[in-house]
Amino acid sequence: MKVGGKHYRTIYPVGDGQTIEVIDQTRLPHEFALVQLYTLDDAVRAIADMIVRGAPLIGATGAYGMALALRADATTGALEEARRRLVATRPTAVNLRWAVDEVVAAVAPRPVAERAAAAYQCAAELCDEDVASCASIGEYGKKLLAELHRKVPDRRLNVLTHCNAGWLATVDYGTALAPIYKAHDAGIPVHVWVDETRPRNQGASLTAWELGQHGVPHTVIADNAGGHLMQHGQVDVCIVGSDRTTAKGDVGNKIGTYLKALAAHDNGVPFYAALTGATIDWTITDGVAQIPIEERSGDEVRWLRGRTAEGGLGAVAILPAGSPVANPAFDVTPARLVTGIITERGVCPATAEGLRRLYPEI
Amino acid sequence: MKVGGKHYRTIYPVGDGQTIEVIDQTRLPHEFALVQLYTLDDAVRAIADMIVRGAPLIGATGAYGMALALRADATTGALEEARRRLVATRPTAVNLRWAVDEVVAAVAPRPVAERAAAAYQCAAELCDEDVASCASIGEYGKKLLAELHRKVPDRRLNVLTHCNAGWLATVDYGTALAPIYKAHDAGIPVHVWVDETRPRNQGASLTAWELGQHGVPHTVIADNAGGHLMQHGQVDVCIVGSDRTTAKGDVGNKIGTYLKALAAHDNGVPFYAALTGATIDWTITDGVAQIPIEERSGDEVRWLRGRTAEGGLGAVAILPAGSPVANPAFDVTPARLVTGIITERGVCPATAEGLRRLYPEI
Repeated sequence: MKVGGKHYRTIYPVGDGQTIEVIDQTRLPHEFALVQLYTLDDAVRAIADMIVRGAPLIGATGAYGMALALRADATTGALEEARRRLVATRPTAVNLRWAVDEVVAAVAPRPVAERAAAAYQCAAELCDEDVASCASIGEYGKKLLAELHRKVPDRRLNVLTHCNAGWLATVDYGTALAPIYKAHDAGIPVHVWVDETRPRNQGASLTAWELGQHGVPHTVIADNAGGHLMQHGQVDVCIVGSDRTTAKGDVGNKIGTYLKALAAHDNGVPFYAALTGATIDWTITDGVAQIPIEERSGDEVRWLRGRTAEGGLGAVAILPAGSPVANPAFDVTPARLVTGIITERGVCPATAEGLRRLYPEI
Repeated sequence: MKVGGKHYRTIYPVGDGQTIEVIDQTRLPHEFALVQLYTLDDAVRAIADMIVRGAPLIGATGAYGMALALRADATTGALEEARRRLVATRPTAVNLRWAVDEVVAAVAPRPVAERAAAAYQCAAELCDEDVASCASIGEYGKKLLAELHRKVPDRRLNVLTHCNAGWLATVDYGTALAPIYKAHDAGIPVHVWVDETRPRNQGASLTAWELGQHGVPHTVIADNAGGHLMQHGQVDVCIVGSDRTTAKGDVGNKIGTYLKALAAHDNGVPFYAALTGATIDWTITDGVAQIPIEERSGDEVRWLRGRTAEGGLGAVAILPAGSPVANPAFDVTPARLVTGIITERGVCPATAEGLRRLYPEI
């Protein structure tokens, strides 16, 4: 999507076509900086230091990381070593392992001399597939938003989102934000309520930034505010992303999503999850019982990073020194609270039948 | 309650009995500093600068502010001027106007020479009444917690609270936290989940601090986390305060309270509001439609204040420079989501009949 009027993806080759460029997301929203990745080490660091984040983008970086490794040494030993190091950066990232293995499968059968070029080719294809999937989610979601706007044609359509499931988390378009971009670009007057998304503030720092850069009207709110807005008719629809969705449509997503789904349900506001088929875990059916919830460091709650009044980056602690902190990173929204799931293959009810109809081959 | 092992109220006379001392709440939790109020100006500044906050404590400070004014000049002109200046500091604070008017009513009929002493006497009585009311809420609430603990005698009892309705908001004990202090002091093993309470972080900065100082086990969580904890049986009961409650039991309280009530309802967790009779607005019955919601500055969301790594106080901005912010400060929890209301006269259902039975004289 656009940054300062110019179209960007989150990852792409530059120069000789073998150097990879990414946006340094640790410096957003305060600074827009591009980082060049020349080596496997650079790619490993980009993932580990969260210069790139978001499951699809981590996968894409892993794939290009393989290409960077093979460019220097395409022997089978080096291939295995690169795979091992990349997968170890974020051991729980399913997309990362999948993308790296796609590259391995594409290049391993080839002669050493052809492997690097094949890896770049494979990584580029994975990126294009991700963009196509997200664009398709966007088109299906845009139709939903257009229908909702036909009910309130004389005013803006208010969409609430939580966390960042935008183009910064993918290669382009995003998942939850793809329908918003497509609708905005088609002239539908969307306005987005952006949940701050404590503790890491991905809403305030990433979603607000990318919507602002693309020119989409939005307003940042504390995570506490969404229920009140829904009670007062200020939200027409909620759209969130998902980190893992069960075969019956329970949606695992950033902590706090469940609370917004409850408020949407209580106020008759439609609540959608937007995701690619790769996010569906067909092996589990009870999300609350079966989706493991990562417990992250309490320092994410304790310390807040941002821009100081002097313009630099800094951090402040908001808690008493001795107070313990708990920091579950995700929660699960039961399917009964989800109006529908928007995928690259269409929109379906959050049910086993609905999902199976879209993915009959599973 | 206790600070460093010593019992404190939030406001009390010191020295000559005419100087008033308060805790500087703007420096909590990072620093425990006491501030002396010698004059009307000092009292006005303490309220306006939020050195004191919380409706009951603001009222108490207003009452002592009248006494400080009359100590310098007890003429009727000075009395009127002091009343006007104090009430203007927080124009929407119902308790403040009520407490100041109580002092006016007590001193106006008296000779000028007796007025200052009568004002100090009246202010001290108002403080003692507040302490007695909160202690009574604590006793009734303690019985509830003891009953709940009898169901799970082999483990701690987990209470979730939102914002700060603790002793720092009153003269002592608090409202929502009074049952917790009374239960803890009685040996019931309570543990408190403390919602951070964005945007002003009263949970993380005030509730965590006062619980920690009194030795009550607690854990701070992001506001987003409570629903997940309730889904997993980690919360036995919610207790919150209230800024205004309708005659039918709709509870106006800090933004985000409604979301926790929804999660409690969805998971069969009892949800109580603890408040004094003065908080009930008998003139309204539909909280969502009739309780006015203050919209505060977006800077409260945009800037976060806290302790820097160097130990001083600082602030960081977490948003992109151009992103708009909305900041509604309160929301309304419909009575249907409230298990009961704990008052100084007992516990009642959140219904018109329940409240009228406790306050038949209204």
